[in-house]
This record gives sequence, C-alpha cells and structure tokens, in this order.
Amino acid sequence: MSAQRVTINDVTARDGFQIEPTWIPTPDKIALIDALSATGLAKIEATSFTSPKAIPNLADAGEVMSGITRVSGIDYVALIPNEKGVERALDVGTDELNFVMSASDSHGRANLRMTAEQSLARFADMVDMAGHSTRLNASISTAFGCPFQGPVPAERVLEIVAAIADLGIDGVTLCDTTGMANPLQVAALCEAVGERHPGLQLTLHPHDTRGMGLANALAAWQVGVMRFDAALGGLGGCPYAPGASGNICTEDLVHMFECMGIATGCNLDRLIAASATLPALIGHDTPGQVVKAGKADRRYSLPEHAR
Amino acid sequence: MSAQRVTINDVTARDGFQIEPTWIPTPDKIALIDALSATGLAKIEATSFTSPKAIPNLADAGEVMSGITRVSGIDYVALIPNEKGVERALDVGTDELNFVMSASDSHGRANLRMTAEQSLARFADMVDMAGHSTRLNASISTAFGCPFQGPVPAERVLEIVAAIADLGIDGVTLCDTTGMANPLQVAALCEAVGERHPGLQLTLHPHDTRGMGLANALAAWQVGVMRFDAALGGLGGCPYAPGASGNICTEDLVHMFECMGIATGCNLDRLIAASATLPALIGHDTPGQVVKAGKADRRYSLPEHAR
Repeated sequence: MSAQRVTINDVTARDGFQIEPTWIPTPDKIALIDALSATGLAKIEATSFTSPKAIPNLADAGEVMSGITRVSGIDYVALIPNEKGVERALDVGTDELNFVMSASDSHGRANLRMTAEQSLARFADMVDMAGHSTRLNASISTAFGCPFQGPVPAERVLEIVAAIADLGIDGVTLCDTTGMANPLQVAALCEAVGERHPGLQLTLHPHDTRGMGLANALAAWQVGVMRFDAALGGLGGCPYAPGASGNICTEDLVHMFECMGIATGCNLDRLIAASATLPALIGHDTPGQVVKAGKADRRYSLPEHAR
Repeated sequence: MSAQRVTINDVTARDGFQIEPTWIPTPDKIALIDALSATGLAKIEATSFTSPKAIPNLADAGEVMSGITRVSGIDYVALIPNEKGVERALDVGTDELNFVMSASDSHGRANLRMTAEQSLARFADMVDMAGHSTRLNASISTAFGCPFQGPVPAERVLEIVAAIADLGIDGVTLCDTTGMANPLQVAALCEAVGERHPGLQLTLHPHDTRGMGLANALAAWQVGVMRFDAALGGLGGCPYAPGASGNICTEDLVHMFECMGIATGCNLDRLIAASATLPALIGHDTPGQVVKAGKADRRYSLPEHAR
C-alpha cells in the first residue's frame, strides 16, 4: 500500500518566509526558488497572494511569481485566501492555486476572518473565477487540532474534504498547523480520506512543532500518502507556538525517504546546499538536522589510536 | 502486535552528560536524577563506571550512584565498559549493569579499544563477576551503521545479539549511535531480534542526529518494541556528528506515545519541568521541542478580532 515514490511540495518561500520578521528582498526570494527548481522537486509553493498588511514579507507575490525561471515539469503554486488572490495569481500565470481555509471556526476567524462554511462558500466563487485554466488545491488548516478550540473531530474534516471534492477541486492538503497531530491520528484521517476520495490528490502538511513531524510523515506514507509539504531547514512556524519548530524540513524528509529506498526524485545535495544559504538570508539558524550532521552515509576518519 | 504500554529508560545523566564540556557538579546530577525518579520512569541510567580520563564528566559515578535516593520500582542503571566498571558498580549496589560494545570493529577500537569479538570475550568474564546479584543488559553501539566504516550488516548484529543471549544476559539494546538508522531498517532489525530471541528484553536507543529519531521509535513500536532509551531535552550527541542533535528527547517521546494513547507510566508535566532545568545546568539550550512548544493540548486565547 505504501508508495515506492513520493513527491515533495517545498513551501519555504511561502510558509517559511511568511513568519520571518525581517524583509527578504525579492531578488533573494527569486534566487532561492530558482535554486529549488534545480533540485527535482515536484512542486514549489512560491508565495501567497494575500493582503500585504496581513503578511508583509509576501507583499511582492506578483513580482516573485513573474520573476522566477519556470522549469518544465515543476508546478509553481501560490496560496490563495480569497477572490482578489485568484485574480492576482492568474494574472501572472500561477500553475496551481492552493486555496486555504481552517477546519476549526475559531482558527478560521483568527487567521482568515471566516468560518469553515464561509470559506467553502467563497471557494465556490473562486473555482468559478479560476475556471479550468489552472490546477486547484485546497489546504485545510487545523485539520488535526486547533490551538484555540482544541480537538477537531475527524468527521468534521471529512465533511469539509467532501465539500471540497464536490466543488471539483483537484486535491486537498491536510495541515497540522500547530503540530498537534500524532502518528495514529494522521494514519487514521489520511486513510479515511483516501478511501472516501480515491480520485482526490491527498497531501500531508506536517509541522514539527512538537517533534512528531517526520513520524507523522512516515505514518501517512504507511497508509498510502504520496505527497508532502515541507520547507528547507524546517523553516516556518506559528504565532501560537513561539520558539518552536515550523514545517517539517524538506532535506530531512527527502533524506529519510531516500534512506528507506523510497524515491523522491530530488537531488539531496542540492537541497542541502540551498538550505545552507538560509541563515545568511533570514539572519538566524534553522532547525534542520541533515544540513548540520550531513547525510547518513557521511564518513569520518578513524582517530589515530584506532588505526 | 504493537504494545499498549511502553517503558522509558532515561539516559540524560549518562549519555546526555558524558559529552558536556563543562563539569556538572555531583549534587546537581543527584538532584536531576532524584527529579527523574518522581516522573514514573521505568529505568534511569544514572552514570557510567568508565575511565575518568575518557569521560571526565562522569568521574563521580560512585558518588552519584550512592548519593541518589532510590525509589522502589525504578531500576538504576550504569553503563559498564569493562571488569573494573563491574566492580565499581557492584560496590554501590547498581540495579542493572549495562555492558557496552560496538557492532563495528572500527568504532569499537575508537571508542573502547576493542573489536566486537574482544568485547564479547570480556562480557563473558564480566557476567561471571556480576553473578546473579544484578540484572544485566548489553548495549550494541553502531547497530545500524558506523561513522567510520559505514553500513553494518544486519546479520552481523544478529550474530552479536545471539552471542549476548548465549552469555545469559537479560536484555540487549540496539543503539543508533550516530543517527544513521531509517525506519524501515529499524523495523526489520528489531523484528528479526524479537523473532529469534523472544525471551530477550529488547530496547531501542535512537539518536536524532538526522531528525529520524521519533520516526524510528515509531517504527520499532510498530513491530513490538516496548523499551526505549531517551534523554531529557534530547541531550547528548556524538563527537562524529558535531552540531547535531543527540539522543531522542524523553519528554517528546513520552508526549508522542501519550498522544497516541500508548501508556508510558510517566508524568509528562514533571518530565517537562525537569527538562526546563537543563539549560541553566549545562549552559546551553537543548533541542527538545515540547519543552518549548508545550503539549499538544496547550490552548491559546483567541485574538481580539476573532472573538
């Protein structure tokens, strides 16, 4: 049941950069995305067409999407919160629009000023606007729990997934926005979505807030999930988990799968090299492990006394 | 096949402290172990009876083992490299002697100045010395790979495990000394040991050097492993992976299992409180996540605009 090949959507330039307090210059964003384009990733979430007031660091969404060098075979994705975002994204030829909503109404109101039902109603209009010109995905935040209201029943998430599928959206991403998911929960929900909607492209978006990110990715892979969101260096985070890790780390995830003999299509050395440029760009260290420790096949010289 | 209850051996005071460059005063070690004794852990590896020249920070092994307040039901363990260590450990009434060797000869020579065969021969003498007065375990370093010579064949590890079982030692610990193991490898080797030696107590000692620590623990649990080594805050490390994380983090492991509904017998709040004392003790931050992010059931107040 587990796939022998997985695909990675790198979200560094969107989920990673959106929380960074220091402005990242547009040419640096473009250079990073272009470096990512040379690593064999299936998708790159390049930016979000959202309000610059809400997320100042992504105010240059249009310039970024227009400025990057598109590589054939890679889908360049943008996160889209509303109709205005659809319009802006389509203007610059975005390959995939990733709509976003929250499974929990309190997080939806806090983050998007919309309940889940309001988001779904809006999605219907956004699907109409987008037409069939571009691929569509919907990301469901707090699918495994909400930092305000707590547990989110799996049945509620499954209702939302069904509503999204009914809208003709091609894929759905289950987001563990603040790292509340555990491996058994991830396996159960991903399995249920896969059984009910075999034609829907299912992606897992784990966060490593509480250290369970790669364990959750493993659990999802074990029940057939083939698509994962991740960010270089494990960048990203959440305002409701200060000091904690953010997304799962792209190069650590690719490293794990490659060690397991599961193909990712990625050049790990190039990913590590791209990750190593981040601290200079953002002004702080990242939680990524493989960029510090090297790959599992790294060898050391024997100490003198043991030769 | 997966157990509904797991037991944790906390190795903070041994594997965690042994690599710390700054001397940790004996009363602080004792206070930390006494705090750990109030958390419900099954075992506490309190120190190592090794050469003070090799590991200066554990030069006070005897004082630590004599100074702690023993709690009934908890096994206080010491790591033992040789006959001298057996003698010193027995003198202070250690509950369990944890012999150590390396699966790979190059790591064995570098770390213990012994090949695997030399270690096994020595273990025979150490078993005789210990008699039946105390429980015995053997830890096999580099069981999933060696930073000097690379892959270690599973069959070689299984030969070593068989030799250890033949010596009448009660349990074996498979150590991923430098975080080279991946989940499929862990599952396969643990399953093989369990099938061949159902009477042997099997423990997994994962390191998080490359971010796979909790995923490896999950994979081991899935094939029936019930015993795990871990250190508060993910302390520890390896001289051959500078800058990288060390042991898997006790409180993050307990948190994952408890979120999964798997009983650990531990009071997670007390573990987190004990972990929070580490930075002041060792003079630097730790890689533990839950101590920073809080447990998955942590709740935040809704922002003003969303109420």
